Amino acid sequence: MRPDTTLIRQLRAALGPDAVLSAPESCVAFECDALATHRLTPDLVVLPGSVDEVLAVLRIAARAGVPVVARGAGTGLSGGALPVEGSILLVLSRLDRILEVDAGRRLARVQPGVTNLSISDAAVPHGLFYAPDPSSQLACTIGGNVAENSGGVHCLKYGLTVHNLLELVVATWDGELITVGSPLGEAPGLSLLPLLTGSEGMLGIVVEATVRLVPLPERVELVMASFDDVGRCAEAVGTIIASGTVPAGLEMMDGPALRAAEAFAHCGYPPEAAAILLCELDGLEHDVGAQLDTVLGLLNRCGATSARVAVDAAERARMWSGRKSAFPAVGRLAADYYCMDGTIPRRHLATVLGRIAEMSSQAGLSVANVFHAGDGNLHPLILFDAGRPGELSRAERLGADILELCVAVGGTVTGEHGVGVEKLGPMCTQFGSAELEVFHAIKRVFDPDGRLNPGKAVPTLARCADYGAMRVHGGKLPHSHLPRF
Amino acid sequence: MRPDTTLIRQLRAALGPDAVLSAPESCVAFECDALATHRLTPDLVVLPGSVDEVLAVLRIAARAGVPVVARGAGTGLSGGALPVEGSILLVLSRLDRILEVDAGRRLARVQPGVTNLSISDAAVPHGLFYAPDPSSQLACTIGGNVAENSGGVHCLKYGLTVHNLLELVVATWDGELITVGSPLGEAPGLSLLPLLTGSEGMLGIVVEATVRLVPLPERVELVMASFDDVGRCAEAVGTIIASGTVPAGLEMMDGPALRAAEAFAHCGYPPEAAAILLCELDGLEHDVGAQLDTVLGLLNRCGATSARVAVDAAERARMWSGRKSAFPAVGRLAADYYCMDGTIPRRHLATVLGRIAEMSSQAGLSVANVFHAGDGNLHPLILFDAGRPGELSRAERLGADILELCVAVGGTVTGEHGVGVEKLGPMCTQFGSAELEVFHAIKRVFDPDGRLNPGKAVPTLARCADYGAMRVHGGKLPHSHLPRF
Repeated sequence: MRPDTTLIRQLRAALGPDAVLSAPESCVAFECDALATHRLTPDLVVLPGSVDEVLAVLRIAARAGVPVVARGAGTGLSGGALPVEGSILLVLSRLDRILEVDAGRRLARVQPGVTNLSISDAAVPHGLFYAPDPSSQLACTIGGNVAENSGGVHCLKYGLTVHNLLELVVATWDGELITVGSPLGEAPGLSLLPLLTGSEGMLGIVVEATVRLVPLPERVELVMASFDDVGRCAEAVGTIIASGTVPAGLEMMDGPALRAAEAFAHCGYPPEAAAILLCELDGLEHDVGAQLDTVLGLLNRCGATSARVAVDAAERARMWSGRKSAFPAVGRLAADYYCMDGTIPRRHLATVLGRIAEMSSQAGLSVANVFHAGDGNLHPLILFDAGRPGELSRAERLGADILELCVAVGGTVTGEHGVGVEKLGPMCTQFGSAELEVFHAIKRVFDPDGRLNPGKAVPTLARCADYGAMRVHGGKLPHSHLPRF
Repeated sequence: MRPDTTLIRQLRAALGPDAVLSAPESCVAFECDALATHRLTPDLVVLPGSVDEVLAVLRIAARAGVPVVARGAGTGLSGGALPVEGSILLVLSRLDRILEVDAGRRLARVQPGVTNLSISDAAVPHGLFYAPDPSSQLACTIGGNVAENSGGVHCLKYGLTVHNLLELVVATWDGELITVGSPLGEAPGLSLLPLLTGSEGMLGIVVEATVRLVPLPERVELVMASFDDVGRCAEAVGTIIASGTVPAGLEMMDGPALRAAEAFAHCGYPPEAAAILLCELDGLEHDVGAQLDTVLGLLNRCGATSARVAVDAAERARMWSGRKSAFPAVGRLAADYYCMDGTIPRRHLATVLGRIAEMSSQAGLSVANVFHAGDGNLHPLILFDAGRPGELSRAERLGADILELCVAVGGTVTGEHGVGVEKLGPMCTQFGSAELEVFHAIKRVFDPDGRLNPGKAVPTLARCADYGAMRVHGGKLPHSHLPRF
């Protein structure tokens, strides 16, 4: 469907001719986000340069009854920014100014198109940084981070995006502005900031974010421990957490993942290990010293075959480089890969890993596992070749089974990558109709015409009926092919 | 208005005769919560003994079109549980069972009528505790804590109620159940748990809460520092926070408050001090030792006239007893007192204190100040005598002025006591009509007939027009009688 010329004319009048793309050869660059299995060339792409222009786009779209899909850097992993038929793709990358860094109040006020890492770059001279650190932090933008409630390797200690936001200015479906949250962190009234965070562009468009900055730690230590058994590595995770130490990050990679990372990044991972654990400690000088002693003792008791403390910042960066490039590294092992994102209670780590290995072999598809282990957030990477008939759908089926397994043990179908279009089915596994109806009712409050990123994040009840899922929330799983816990 | 006999008959059939009170002499016990300036004897009080009975009450009320006001222990400070004309008062105190303490997963699943302190009592044998600790923790219940998003002296480190909740089971207006959140802390879909937390019984009735338990600290130290100048004490607060140390609690009391507390509780506060600071440090053995050294050094540099470290748990309890009984202690100084609850950016502590002193003298009413200083959460206690004509309304006016001052410096009109009926006016100062309209629209999602605790927490736009307030959000204050910052 081609967009009508009146709409294009109105948008060009509001934004200038260069900020409105309608030629397919220009629009194709925006056909997908990082969930590249789903693609659709948008009919119309707009690149507003100011908040007023964003509001103008929303007003024009409202009058024309046209859907609007917001997009940041397009690094999302669940298709949240996938174009929707007949919609305007609202790209926020030109709103890229850091409006304020207030070191005294430890906050930064930024536009949505500012990249995650550039907030820390601006804060570091003040002895501060912005804590959530998705692996894509060089490219991904804070608007997208808010929309997906992004995490990262340091979320164990510092929390997800929602825990690091103070205030949001949000453009509504009809081109008005509301402010939610407060620079103090807590605001009276109904708590709208967490509601809007992670709402994937379905409730409004973030046009300004005030984020919390935290002090740069006095001291940082990174330990890499190797294990010759995946289960023992998983147990070490639980033991460290149970000790009361809160690592800044506690990441686990299994053999296939660590070998892929080593081959890709030459980061010093022991290729013979069955699993490795990366445990970063940060904080005040004294505290970190004491915690390091504790963790090294625990790793020894848990049967680590080796534990190496990085000697300096350069070695820490090298050790992290493997973890941070694990997705592309694993991606080199096959034509395509599919990154899952479920969470489970930590105590089920070993069991779930064993079951994933069985499912992987039944499906005839390799799976490499990367975890934010401290949070119980799994990223199984399913390797496949979309060129081979049926392999994509087998990979998707295996992914859905893994997510149902997560729910079955009391976990969830997404940890930090959002639902987008990818996990609409698994959401039917997670939620019952009462909860889904509330989601839809809240969607109608913020978007009465249903034009903001329609069809994403919250499945319709009809879709859930088609999906055939019953709710398995709280470990009460009706699917007989999955284990009970 | 007397409730109709059909309604009473239906409720008695569902709950048994003893669980339904309609005699005024029985109902009068529920005429107010701890905001005793507002009273109304309820027409009908029900005390369900199970979740099914709660649902039955809600269904009967829905059919009869009768409002429902939920109540826990009645310790709320903003009138959230004040009966509403012609309503059923739904008292949840009989739902008082701890359903599960899971030490491995560090959580407790409890009914809403369980008292705050009894959760910790059940967790301590497992080396765990429930962190939020309102001063009323012996009496107040978790259902009320959720409804008001209660705080306490340890919220600086451990967060408010919302930060310590994992999952809620909520009864809806029409007697259905929904589950929000997840035992893992994060849930996919729209974030309803924070939305329901602090919603003051306007969106649903909490019938089960799964709360996070945290490890008992290895070591606790409490420092009491005295200052001969309130401003210097306020500066010490900022200096400690800026050092990167996160105390478990950082509480400040001014001269009038500390002298009242000392006279009441004999807790060892120096009566000659202009202000005292209570700084509690907790955590791992090594960490606390290092932090104590840091804090003592900073207090010395900030001009503390003395700093005493409690020698043991008994002295710690004594030092805290004065702070925890500050409200009743101050209450003895006058016939009545009015406890305010605003938050401000910490850097304005000294300025705001000075301005409150001026306003207090202009109003001819004494004010004693107690603060969760680390959070910037103020509790000015306004002393007055409701028996003297006009004094109550002068106290209310002074209270409203103090809250507007909080908003003017970039703060908020409530920190941890909720809005209830008390702060409906100040909410008009905090929010613009766009935000209030969203609040009302969300209310309609959860309560289409407007029968759940009607008239509380969110002012109508008409009321705000009467109140004559313009929005002063973000420090842009139009009121010429207040200072600019």
